Amino acid sequence: MARYAPVNFSDITLNGKFWTERLETVLTRTIPSQHVKLGETGILESLTLPDPPPPLRLPRHANGFTVQVFWDSDVGKWVEAASYALAHRRDEDIEAKIDKIVDDLANAQADDGYLNCWYLGREPDNRWTNLRDNHEMYNAGHLLEGAIAYFLVTGRRRFLDIMERYLDHIYARFGTGPGQERGYGGHEEIEIALMKLYHLTGEKKHLDFCIYLIDERGRQPHYYDIERERREARNGGVDTQRYSFKDYEYSQSHKPVREQDKVVGHAVRAMYLYTAMADLAAEIEDEALKRACETLWKDVMETKMYVTAGLGPSAHNEGFTHDFDLPNQTAYAETCASVALIFWAQKMLHLDLDGQYADILELALFNGALSGLSRDGTSYFYANPLESDGTPERWDWHMCPCCTMNVSRLVASVGGYFISRADDGVAFHLYGGSETTLDLAGTQVELSENSNYPWSGDIEIAVDPAEQAEFTVNLRIPGWCHDASVTVNGETVDAKAASKGYLAIRRTWQAGDQITLSLPMPPVKLYAHPHVIMDAGRVALKRGPLVYCIEEADNAGGWVQRFKLPRDADLEAATRADLFDGIVTLKSKALEINEGDWRTLYRTRPPQESESEVTAIPYYLWANRGKGTMLVWVPEA
Amino acid sequence: MARYAPVNFSDITLNGKFWTERLETVLTRTIPSQHVKLGETGILESLTLPDPPPPLRLPRHANGFTVQVFWDSDVGKWVEAASYALAHRRDEDIEAKIDKIVDDLANAQADDGYLNCWYLGREPDNRWTNLRDNHEMYNAGHLLEGAIAYFLVTGRRRFLDIMERYLDHIYARFGTGPGQERGYGGHEEIEIALMKLYHLTGEKKHLDFCIYLIDERGRQPHYYDIERERREARNGGVDTQRYSFKDYEYSQSHKPVREQDKVVGHAVRAMYLYTAMADLAAEIEDEALKRACETLWKDVMETKMYVTAGLGPSAHNEGFTHDFDLPNQTAYAETCASVALIFWAQKMLHLDLDGQYADILELALFNGALSGLSRDGTSYFYANPLESDGTPERWDWHMCPCCTMNVSRLVASVGGYFISRADDGVAFHLYGGSETTLDLAGTQVELSENSNYPWSGDIEIAVDPAEQAEFTVNLRIPGWCHDASVTVNGETVDAKAASKGYLAIRRTWQAGDQITLSLPMPPVKLYAHPHVIMDAGRVALKRGPLVYCIEEADNAGGWVQRFKLPRDADLEAATRADLFDGIVTLKSKALEINEGDWRTLYRTRPPQESESEVTAIPYYLWANRGKGTMLVWVPEA
Repeated sequence: MARYAPVNFSDITLNGKFWTERLETVLTRTIPSQHVKLGETGILESLTLPDPPPPLRLPRHANGFTVQVFWDSDVGKWVEAASYALAHRRDEDIEAKIDKIVDDLANAQADDGYLNCWYLGREPDNRWTNLRDNHEMYNAGHLLEGAIAYFLVTGRRRFLDIMERYLDHIYARFGTGPGQERGYGGHEEIEIALMKLYHLTGEKKHLDFCIYLIDERGRQPHYYDIERERREARNGGVDTQRYSFKDYEYSQSHKPVREQDKVVGHAVRAMYLYTAMADLAAEIEDEALKRACETLWKDVMETKMYVTAGLGPSAHNEGFTHDFDLPNQTAYAETCASVALIFWAQKMLHLDLDGQYADILELALFNGALSGLSRDGTSYFYANPLESDGTPERWDWHMCPCCTMNVSRLVASVGGYFISRADDGVAFHLYGGSETTLDLAGTQVELSENSNYPWSGDIEIAVDPAEQAEFTVNLRIPGWCHDASVTVNGETVDAKAASKGYLAIRRTWQAGDQITLSLPMPPVKLYAHPHVIMDAGRVALKRGPLVYCIEEADNAGGWVQRFKLPRDADLEAATRADLFDGIVTLKSKALEINEGDWRTLYRTRPPQESESEVTAIPYYLWANRGKGTMLVWVPEA
Repeated sequence: MARYAPVNFSDITLNGKFWTERLETVLTRTIPSQHVKLGETGILESLTLPDPPPPLRLPRHANGFTVQVFWDSDVGKWVEAASYALAHRRDEDIEAKIDKIVDDLANAQADDGYLNCWYLGREPDNRWTNLRDNHEMYNAGHLLEGAIAYFLVTGRRRFLDIMERYLDHIYARFGTGPGQERGYGGHEEIEIALMKLYHLTGEKKHLDFCIYLIDERGRQPHYYDIERERREARNGGVDTQRYSFKDYEYSQSHKPVREQDKVVGHAVRAMYLYTAMADLAAEIEDEALKRACETLWKDVMETKMYVTAGLGPSAHNEGFTHDFDLPNQTAYAETCASVALIFWAQKMLHLDLDGQYADILELALFNGALSGLSRDGTSYFYANPLESDGTPERWDWHMCPCCTMNVSRLVASVGGYFISRADDGVAFHLYGGSETTLDLAGTQVELSENSNYPWSGDIEIAVDPAEQAEFTVNLRIPGWCHDASVTVNGETVDAKAASKGYLAIRRTWQAGDQITLSLPMPPVKLYAHPHVIMDAGRVALKRGPLVYCIEEADNAGGWVQRFKLPRDADLEAATRADLFDGIVTLKSKALEINEGDWRTLYRTRPPQESESEVTAIPYYLWANRGKGTMLVWVPEA
C-alpha cells in the first residue's frame, strides 16, 4: 500500500461546529491566558538568568510557586502552541511575545551552545550530571518543537538557529564515539522533536542522534548507574539527587526498547517514547522497532486503557501499574498522556493505515484529552478521573503546567489529524467539517467534508479534482460503527468491503463528485473486562466516539452514585440546544437509591429505591458547571 | 453513677481460645522477633551516639533503611510491649535486652536531661527547633510509656528516673511562664503518657503540663508560625525543614481543641489527642473538653469510619479527608489508628459507661487493629484496605515500624480492656474467657467469665464473693445484638432493661452465683450510608463483632470481585475446624460473573453470569495464605 503521510494542519480548514468552537476558544482565550500565567508564575522571568546564581536550596517564589527544573519545556510548548495559533491568523502581539522569549534564550545560551535556564541560572557547575531526573534533554526537545513551529509559520530562523547550536553541543557530548558519554534523557521527548527536525531539514545528524537515543536506552552498563556512581564519588558516597522512583521501568530504561513488551512506568514518558519509536520505525523501516511498537500497543489496549482513553491509573508514579488496574475515582489519567497517545496513534497509523489506530486517536481526542480543558478555555484538569465525589475542580494553573500547553498545542493543530495523503490517495480519519486542497495523481483536488460530527454521523464529502483523475479516497469506518452506508454520486458502495477500518474507493474522480457516508451512532452500553474489578456490574455509556458521564448538574439531588441502570433500559439520544451551545445527551430510565432516613453510617436495613431517570453528557464536558459528583461507570440494576 | 475504672490487664487472666492464641503468638513470636528487627534495621544502634555526629544529609543505612527521626519512639514502644509480656511471664533475656536499652539511653542523655537520640547524634545544635515536624515530644511520650510499663512490671525505676529527668528539662523550657516557649508537639502522644504518669505518681506537675499542652494547642499566635519564623531568620529567609502538610489541621492545631468539632488531619495524631483529651476531661472534670470529645466522636462515627473501624482513608496525609470518603481498595486505615481508636474508646467509656464506646472498642479490636498482625505474629499490615486486587502483602517490617509495636503492645495488654470496676460494681465490656479477683463492696469477689466468644455468644459468668455482698454486675449487651437473654442462677433477667448498652444487675451476690448471657449472633448484611459512594449497591457481612471478607483462598477462580450476592440469599454460619485452628465462616449463594471469552478490554455484550456460592472469613484473618484478591463490600445482585 502507498505510504500515507498526514496533511499539515495549516493546509486544512476546519469549519464544523464542534471544532470551530474549540479552536476559537483556544486561540482567543487559552493561548493568551497561558502567556499571562507564564508571567505570573515566574516562568518567563526564569529565562533571564540571575547573576550570581542563587543558592541551590529553592527559595519560595513570591507568588507561592517554586522554580522548577522543567520550566524551559513549558516555554517551548507555549511557543509551539502560539505558533500554531499564528498559522490560523497572524498576531503581532503574540509574535512580539515569542520574540522576547527568543531574545531571552539567546542571552541565556552559553558560549558553548548549552541552553538550560535552570542549570545556567542555579547550578552552572552541575550540567549533565543527572539525566535520570533533571529533564535537560526533555527541555531541549520542547524548546526545539517550539522553534520548529515558529519557523514553519513565520519563516523566522533565530530560535531554530539557537536550538541547532544547542543540539550541536549535545551531539558533541553524547554518543558512542570516543570520549562521548552514552547518556539519554530520563523523560523522553527530544526524540520526537529530533524526528520533526529531520523531517523538516533532512539533515541526517538529527536522525542519527535520535537513533542513538532510541538504541542506547536501557542498555547495560546502565548510564543512570554510571552517572549516579559519579555523583556519589563526588559526594563522599552519597547521591544527593532526589530519586523518586527507584526503578528504571519508570523511565522505560529497564531494558532496550526493542525488547520491551509491557507498557510500564510514567505514562507520558512512555507515550513520548513510543511516538518516537513509531516515527523512527517508519522512517528507517526498522521491523524490530515496528514490532515492539505493535506489541506495546496491544498491551496497553488490552489491559491498561481507560474507556476514555485515559492512561496511567496511579498518581504515585504518574503512570502504569499492573494489568486491569483502572480505578475510577483515583484515576490519574493525565491529560498529557492522552494527548501523547494521540501522537503515538498517529505515528502508528502512518506505519500501517489501520483503523484501530485512528479509533484510538479519535477516542483519546474526544475524551481523555479534551476533558483536560474547560469549556471557557482557561482552566484545566491534570488528572482526569472517571468518577468524582464532588471534590475535584478544574485548576487555573498548576505547579507543573505541562498539561495546559499540551492541550492547547493539540487543539491549535488538530486539523493535522484529520486527513492523510499518498501520491494517489487520500484518507479521511476524522470527520467534523474540513476543507483542503491536495495534489493527487497529478491534479489539484479540492476536498470538502461537511458534517455535524461527532453529534451526527451523516457526512458529505465533495471531491473536486481540477482535472479528472484516478485516485483512492479512503473513508474511515469507525470500529464502533456496525452499519455504515456509503454512496458516491447517489450510488451505493458496499461499506462492508472496508478493510482494517477503511473503505477504499478507487475510481476516476471528477469535478462535482459527491460522497455520502452515514455512520449510525446509536447509544451503547459498554462492559469492561471482568478483571477490571472496579467496573464489575457497571456499564459505561457511549455514542459514536463520545463517552458519556452522569453529572450532578443534570441530575439534581446530589451524589449521582445513587443511580442504577436496569439492563433492559434503553438509552435515548436527545439533542439539547440549551446545553453547551447544543450537544446530544443520553437519557435512560434508572433506579435511584433514596437517602431517606439514614442516620448512622452503617445499618442492616437496605436503602429504599425508586424509579427515576438519568441524563448523561459527554465526558469531556464534565466539571464546567461548578462542583458536583460525576460517574462514568454506572452500576447496573 | 459510680465512676468506673479499668481493671489492669495484669490483674486479669485470659483463658478463652481466641485470646489465648493471639496472646501466645505475640508473647512468643511477635515481641522477640521485633527486637531482632530493631537490631537489624539499626534502630537499637541509633541509641549509641556517634562521636562526632555524622553530617545532616542522611546516609543510607547498610541494610537499606535510613535513620529516622522517630526511632526513639519505636524503642519506647517495644519496651512497653515487652514489659507487658513480662507481666505474663518473667523472662531474663527480655529483661536484659530492656536493661541494655536503658543503659544506652542513660549514656545518651545530655547533662541537662535532654534525651532525643536523633538530635543528640546528628543535630545537637538544632534541638527544639521544629516541634511541628520532628517528633521530639512524641518520642519522649513513647519512651515514657515504656518506662512506666517496665517500672510497673519489674519495680525497676532507672528508666523512669531517666524520663523524669527529661520531663523536668521539658517542663523548664516549655510553658506559659516567663522565659518559656509555648511549644507543643506536632504529633500528639506525650499527653497520653503524661496522664499515665500522673495516674501512677499523683504528681501534679505531670497533670499540669498535660493541661498546658492540651490548652496551648491551636492557640494564636501559632507556635509553629513562631518557630518557622525563627528558622527562617537563621537561614536567610528560607525554612529548610521539610513540611509535608501545609495545614495545621494535619496536627489538629488549627484551632484550640475545645473548639474543634470535625475530625481532621493525620488519623493517629487525632486519635492520640482525643485519647488524652478524654482522659484529662475525666480527671479534671472539664465539661467543655468532654463535650468536644463527644462532638468529635459523633463526627467520626457518623461520617468517617470504615465498617472495620479503620480510620483515615488517605495515604497522602495518613488521615482524614471529607465526610463519607471511604474508598476500599486504597483505604489507608492505618493499624495504629484503629489501635488508637481503642485507646480513645476506652477513655470515653470511663467518662460515661455507654455501650456505644465499648461497641467501637470491640469493633476496632477484632477488625481494624487485629488485621494488622499476621496469624504467625511476624508480619504486618500498616494500611488495612477493604478490597485487594491481589497486590498487597503483609510486610516483615517497615521503614516506619510504628504499627508493629502498636499491635503487640495492644495484644500483650488486651486483658485491660475487658472489665472495669467501681467501688461496688463491675462492668464486663468484652467477653472471651477471663478471670479476675476484685474487692467490691468490702469483700473479695472472684469473677470468672467463660465463653468461646467471638465465635459463640453463649457466655457464663461465675460470681464468687468471699462474703455475700450487694454490688452491681454490668453486662454489656452489644449494639449488634437485638435479642440477648440473661439468667441469674437460672432465673431470667429482663435483658431489655439494659440502658446505654449495659444491663445492670444489682443484688446481693453470694458464692456460687451463676450468670448466663446469651448473645445470639446471626450473620447480617450491612448497608453503608448512601453517601458512601464506594459502597452503593454493596453489602458487608458481619457476625457478632466480626466483619467478614471474601478471599481468594476460599473461593477458587481468581478475582473475588466477580461475585454478587442476591438480596434474598441467606448467610449461613459454619464452624470450620480446618481453618485457622477453628473459626466460623459465612456461606452464601451468589451469582458469579464468568470471564468466558473476553478478549478486548471493553465490549457491548454483557458478561455471562452463573449461580455459585461464596465463603467468607473474618476480615482480621485475611492475607495469611499467600497473595490473592479480597473484598469486604460485595456487590448485591
